Amino acid sequence: MVQLQTSSDPLLAANPTYAYVNAFIDELQRSGVHNIVICPGSRSTPLAMAIAAHPSLKAWMHVDERSAAFFALGMAKQLKRPVGLVCTSGTAAANFLPAIAEAKLTHVPLLVLTADRPHELRETGAPQAIDQNRLYGTHVKWFVEVALPEASNEALRYIRTLADRVAALASAVPAGPVHLNLPFREPLTPAALPDQPLPPVEKRDPILWQGRPDNAPYIRVNDALPGGIPAAEMERIAEQASSISHGLIVVGPSFDPSLTQPLLALARILRYPILADPLSQLRGGAHEQDLIISSYDAFLRLESFTRRFVPELIIRFGAMPVAKPFLLYLKRYADCPQIIVDGLGEWNEPTQLASQLIHTHPATFCAELTALLAQRKQDRPVHDDSWLSSWLRTDRVTRQTLRAAIQDFQAPFEGRVFTELADLLPEDSTLFAGNSMPIRDMDTFYWGGPQSVATLGNRGANGIDGVISSALGVSAGKQSSTPTVLVIGDLSFFHDLNGLLAARLHQLDLVIILINNDGGGIFSFLPQAAYPDHFEQLFGTPTGLDFQPVVQMYGGTYQRPADWSAFRQAFQHGIAARGLHVIELRTERASNVAMHRQLWQAVESALRNQED
Amino acid sequence: MVQLQTSSDPLLAANPTYAYVNAFIDELQRSGVHNIVICPGSRSTPLAMAIAAHPSLKAWMHVDERSAAFFALGMAKQLKRPVGLVCTSGTAAANFLPAIAEAKLTHVPLLVLTADRPHELRETGAPQAIDQNRLYGTHVKWFVEVALPEASNEALRYIRTLADRVAALASAVPAGPVHLNLPFREPLTPAALPDQPLPPVEKRDPILWQGRPDNAPYIRVNDALPGGIPAAEMERIAEQASSISHGLIVVGPSFDPSLTQPLLALARILRYPILADPLSQLRGGAHEQDLIISSYDAFLRLESFTRRFVPELIIRFGAMPVAKPFLLYLKRYADCPQIIVDGLGEWNEPTQLASQLIHTHPATFCAELTALLAQRKQDRPVHDDSWLSSWLRTDRVTRQTLRAAIQDFQAPFEGRVFTELADLLPEDSTLFAGNSMPIRDMDTFYWGGPQSVATLGNRGANGIDGVISSALGVSAGKQSSTPTVLVIGDLSFFHDLNGLLAARLHQLDLVIILINNDGGGIFSFLPQAAYPDHFEQLFGTPTGLDFQPVVQMYGGTYQRPADWSAFRQAFQHGIAARGLHVIELRTERASNVAMHRQLWQAVESALRNQED
Repeated sequence: MVQLQTSSDPLLAANPTYAYVNAFIDELQRSGVHNIVICPGSRSTPLAMAIAAHPSLKAWMHVDERSAAFFALGMAKQLKRPVGLVCTSGTAAANFLPAIAEAKLTHVPLLVLTADRPHELRETGAPQAIDQNRLYGTHVKWFVEVALPEASNEALRYIRTLADRVAALASAVPAGPVHLNLPFREPLTPAALPDQPLPPVEKRDPILWQGRPDNAPYIRVNDALPGGIPAAEMERIAEQASSISHGLIVVGPSFDPSLTQPLLALARILRYPILADPLSQLRGGAHEQDLIISSYDAFLRLESFTRRFVPELIIRFGAMPVAKPFLLYLKRYADCPQIIVDGLGEWNEPTQLASQLIHTHPATFCAELTALLAQRKQDRPVHDDSWLSSWLRTDRVTRQTLRAAIQDFQAPFEGRVFTELADLLPEDSTLFAGNSMPIRDMDTFYWGGPQSVATLGNRGANGIDGVISSALGVSAGKQSSTPTVLVIGDLSFFHDLNGLLAARLHQLDLVIILINNDGGGIFSFLPQAAYPDHFEQLFGTPTGLDFQPVVQMYGGTYQRPADWSAFRQAFQHGIAARGLHVIELRTERASNVAMHRQLWQAVESALRNQED
Repeated sequence: MVQLQTSSDPLLAANPTYAYVNAFIDELQRSGVHNIVICPGSRSTPLAMAIAAHPSLKAWMHVDERSAAFFALGMAKQLKRPVGLVCTSGTAAANFLPAIAEAKLTHVPLLVLTADRPHELRETGAPQAIDQNRLYGTHVKWFVEVALPEASNEALRYIRTLADRVAALASAVPAGPVHLNLPFREPLTPAALPDQPLPPVEKRDPILWQGRPDNAPYIRVNDALPGGIPAAEMERIAEQASSISHGLIVVGPSFDPSLTQPLLALARILRYPILADPLSQLRGGAHEQDLIISSYDAFLRLESFTRRFVPELIIRFGAMPVAKPFLLYLKRYADCPQIIVDGLGEWNEPTQLASQLIHTHPATFCAELTALLAQRKQDRPVHDDSWLSSWLRTDRVTRQTLRAAIQDFQAPFEGRVFTELADLLPEDSTLFAGNSMPIRDMDTFYWGGPQSVATLGNRGANGIDGVISSALGVSAGKQSSTPTVLVIGDLSFFHDLNGLLAARLHQLDLVIILINNDGGGIFSFLPQAAYPDHFEQLFGTPTGLDFQPVVQMYGGTYQRPADWSAFRQAFQHGIAARGLHVIELRTERASNVAMHRQLWQAVESALRNQED
């Protein structure tokens, strides 16, 4: 018989609430949830105390629930497994919504555990009570109004099953957030309750009270990935692809490394270039680069290019790429057959131009299509190389031109951060790009280096909120001490200043490159810039803040290098010294726009010369 | 015929989107919405530009949507009329949720205007798009998915009517937030669109294109307050009240000054003491204080008092008071008839002990009941004064004892802030109390002075979030330059640090008294304190932050007075100098609890001596 441990664990022996919550928390870790972000509060005491007492769980405290939720998002993104998130009742829970919306769109597994008042204290004017039922609406995969705690075998069977179920559900394809609302009555502490005795030990099913032997989950859940599509349909696609030389493979944001090799094999046999989004994990690194196009955001702006390079088939994987010129290229050739392969059952097609949407596992699709094409190739070579080599040459000339032109700029140019980083980032580091300008500059100017670098961003809702916290969550989720680097604009940095607390509380490593143009730099590139009357008030929105003191308040270092050589030094120091380091680049919105325009002209001339 | 002004207003003549949005925004100000808080973004450009261009509207920019929403909440609380709130699409809108939940519970009229992608760009992987349909769930009074802009008479008729309707609805009893989701297609600027010509001027109904003459609303909306309840029922209540001497009137948080005189008249005729919550607006000020009990939070803790003072009828107005001892007193005398008078149609009754709930206008109820009692009094005096005078004497002794004991403390005592403020606050100032400890200390230690002071707090969901922004919104909403003072704890101060930006951007006046005990001081008063193992980690949650640099970053002054004399000086300087001033009091959580306990003992002895 299993040895009961109640006597040694005061929380387990405490009262019905703790018997129930301990079983729940214990079962979560059996299902692979090992990290839980906790925001302080009273109603959530049973969850917090059970988590803190469990030897296999790591509790990450955070004070601001909004930052905490993005911190959990970043951690789950890095770990690729569910992270828990706990708060008390009331507006605390409402603060989670932005990160949850992002997690839903980017398929990040979160287990959101909100404590709540019991039913008799709802909608009665009781303090710290808001309606938490379906609080996150359509932004979670599932909502569960959890039963009030009880200390019966039946209740523990329910709560252990529920824990396994939601941990599996959060991870199942497509992964995402799951919300459990847990009501608790007082007492919230593990006080023994003489009038609510626990069942006698001999009546307790040990599998329910201590869990299954060997830390096994109560119910193990397996979710298979989607399989292949019908063979006849694959034959048709192979026939189509083998008849078209001028094809493109496009890879949007994706974090599935198992996709890389099958995708490269498909491109190799088709002789199609791969337009690789900066978050596709295909730019740079150890794998072959002679299929990868990384500077298309620049040259697809050129009428002289897009006029001549007419695609006849596009096979797209993952979400839509960042590059707007690519979107316009798609619209220019609206009749080009466009096949979207989506492993998450999504409808990632904002253009309404695609001719086929395939919901299948992308690696399976690539492998099957490659095999079919290889059979055909035994008879005749599938395609010649001229289309591919023209794209590759254009890409190479574009990168060389941009790199050279950027070097010549006297004023600090925002995009140069990424050409520098391609040289500076150590092997196995992570580069997190903030939204608005950084991700766009990364798209244009980060072509990768030989080292392996993971690239990340919050590209579900593309918010400028929660970015610092997300990057810190990535850092916290790392098993090894590889560097994490965040590039972020000043409005986004301001938005999540509170997120910096996690660096201090948990001694995390993060190098932040803060591009400070004092306001919303992206608007200078948008049509709003043509309306000067209220431009600075409504869109420029300068805050004039000097962030140095606040970074120091959190124990970080702050540097404002005067030139790129000093930037490199500061960066290398930050990586080596560990901890939090903010490197600020002061830039200027107007000149930044002007420099971008110069670059497109330089690329145009270079490509024209090359044709001649 | 009304003179058309299209030629003089480039925005109105621009394109169908702007014709529609200008009509909407123009109509909002006709319905009494004059202040709109705007967060920068691209999709919301038509709203932002139309607001900025309208001469009768004040646009308040803010960068962090969460703080912006609380800023709007505070402003609407102060103005007692709807304030607009604008953001772009995506997680920006999600950041509004905490303040919206608070506004719903405290009946603050907000018009939440979220820009959205048009239908063809939803759920398709388009950037910055989350599902905004019913985003705030049950936390708004009404949700409207607004039609796409059109420039027809019919569309302008629709949008003008909608503007008047939602402005009225937000204000109608019970007031609250209303959410409009407005999709916009590109172009988002007022560019003229040759392929989308506006209707010729002669086809434009001037009432729809320029609005009704004399800035009148298109449709004027009037919502009557609830009337009285049936006469027979009022007679029954008068009979009941006139037969009971040992009655209490209890007034919770309320912001309706029209209630004060009818309520005092009722208490005067019944000879019932009024237990006045710190947010009831009844403590201190010019009106008579010989009916008001303000220190019951202290003496209702005493078994020696509650045993002897047995209530026989309780008439309660407004939300539940803050004081937990009052709640326990109610529970002790669970069978005491308890009548709740509620003018908002709410169910503010977390105890489930009340015997009657009356949904009527409280002032009407008081006046009618007083009249009925006056008729009876002509025959016989309604009650003698011994019950009332005992309560008043207890209250006076309690206040004197507390005040004297507090003076003797050597260590800085958090509650003393409020006894000091009762002396220091200038006439017509506003005192905003943060949640967690400040509101409780205010309840215990703020008994008011002769000057008129408005007391405010966020007592819907009682969150520690958004408090700085709410207080700054109050300051911004003031027509005159009367001082606004916020008392706040360090975790709450940290939570809304970003809110301080509004002080800088809009040159606002606010004196913040920051009670810094480095963590969650309230937990030291709760049962969690008995579990030292994880107490500091889970509940104490010290951040160790020195806020001085961040306050200076926002252009505020920061002082840490060494004693109460220096505190008074700093306070008076802050009030006089205008702008943002933070006065920090460093306190210590453990000694603060000990001092509270000493005070209850002092009150107990004083009241015992007084009996002898």
